[in-house]
Amino acid sequence: MGKFIVIGERIHFISPVIREAMLARDPGPVLQRAREQLAAGATYLDVNIGPAERDGEDLMKWAVQVLQDEFDNVPLCLDTVNQKAIEAGISVYNRAKGKPIINSADAGERISNVDLAAANDAIVIALCSKAGVPVDNDERMTYCQELLEHGMELGMEPEDMWFDPLFLVIKGMQEKLPDVLEAIRMLTDMGLNTTGGLSNISNGMPPHIRPIMDASMVAMAMQSGLSSVIINPCDQRMMETVKSCDVIRGNILYADSYLEI
Amino acid sequence: MGKFIVIGERIHFISPVIREAMLARDPGPVLQRAREQLAAGATYLDVNIGPAERDGEDLMKWAVQVLQDEFDNVPLCLDTVNQKAIEAGISVYNRAKGKPIINSADAGERISNVDLAAANDAIVIALCSKAGVPVDNDERMTYCQELLEHGMELGMEPEDMWFDPLFLVIKGMQEKLPDVLEAIRMLTDMGLNTTGGLSNISNGMPPHIRPIMDASMVAMAMQSGLSSVIINPCDQRMMETVKSCDVIRGNILYADSYLEI
Repeated sequence: MGKFIVIGERIHFISPVIREAMLARDPGPVLQRAREQLAAGATYLDVNIGPAERDGEDLMKWAVQVLQDEFDNVPLCLDTVNQKAIEAGISVYNRAKGKPIINSADAGERISNVDLAAANDAIVIALCSKAGVPVDNDERMTYCQELLEHGMELGMEPEDMWFDPLFLVIKGMQEKLPDVLEAIRMLTDMGLNTTGGLSNISNGMPPHIRPIMDASMVAMAMQSGLSSVIINPCDQRMMETVKSCDVIRGNILYADSYLEI
Repeated sequence: MGKFIVIGERIHFISPVIREAMLARDPGPVLQRAREQLAAGATYLDVNIGPAERDGEDLMKWAVQVLQDEFDNVPLCLDTVNQKAIEAGISVYNRAKGKPIINSADAGERISNVDLAAANDAIVIALCSKAGVPVDNDERMTYCQELLEHGMELGMEPEDMWFDPLFLVIKGMQEKLPDVLEAIRMLTDMGLNTTGGLSNISNGMPPHIRPIMDASMVAMAMQSGLSSVIINPCDQRMMETVKSCDVIRGNILYADSYLEI
């Protein structure tokens, strides 16, 4: 099993600071959040530019270029429903540190993002869902199979499809969480990579509880085989836990300084 | 799966305060550590009276009685190599809150503690070892089988044998940790209960790292099926993690106040 991959989620159009910076093409706030996340241990950075219906292509190109210029071709996860913007981003993307990731496809209308990934030699995050939340793991695995077959027909390598089991929210769907962990185990046993927006599980919980719940979940998910996660790497407890679990899994050689690396 | 059981480890003869109190039959320090551990969320309390070669029977009886009198028949884990002391403790033990636990048997010379448990309708912690550390899980499971067969021949119920996979130390045996987690999974899949002294994994690490590593490990072990652990429940990060994982496993119904319960 390879070293666990953290995708930093903090460059997101939903944040007023980021939205304003993106609309004004002001690199400062975007680079600041990138710097913080890389210092905290992120490998990939997610770049969410929102729906970007008007000038998405220009915006994604700009974001890719300012980030890769400043941070030595940092690998990026391109996140928008605007497929032309993703293609534009890839057209200026430097692969020296890793393929671009497309965020995201599902087994429904968004399956065309698998085609986009195949056509551009990109990684794609593949949600195990079609229309809404899957009711059980039979449904999750059916969608996984559909996505996998579609990707392979298009010539994709299975390791370039990162399956997202959907991290469901505990407040409202607590009884579904063991299924999520079991799905990660099943996907891992199939030799597949997995990822997802883990902190959704603690949505609606008091702020002091969220890092505790999220860190507990990431450790359980890593024991189930999770190979990557989309989180806020500036959550210290989360990153301490990720690094510790990677020591326990044998992916990082233990040294007393392992938390600082 | 039942609610996770925490066995508090802080009443231990190796602690100078406890040793002195035990030798002087001074209940104060023993009750103080019991109170702290129960307040922090321990279910069982381990009572380690050391080798207790001379007056072990009297000492264990005294400890059982002062603890159960003060804390409403708190269930106890009787921990000494002196079998007569364990028998004496059980002779005055009140089972209203749970059977006594004998700590511990192994597949070697200490297998006689399985006999002791069978003769006294007690739970026994069964180490998956014989002479030294098992080299792999084949060896662990062989010892498990020997212990299980021996117990069942004596009429024990399998659920009264809590198997300890041996939580090996990361500094020196890092590459063995995935085996430990896999052993917990195999034992769980056999329908068996599991426990062990988890914080041994972080022995020799800097003090600020130990709670981080231990909490990460307990979450991974709980995802592998671990049903109990022997730890210091006054380690806040450990108990927060145990409670959160029990929410995720569905053993505790989530409420915003779950950490305070």
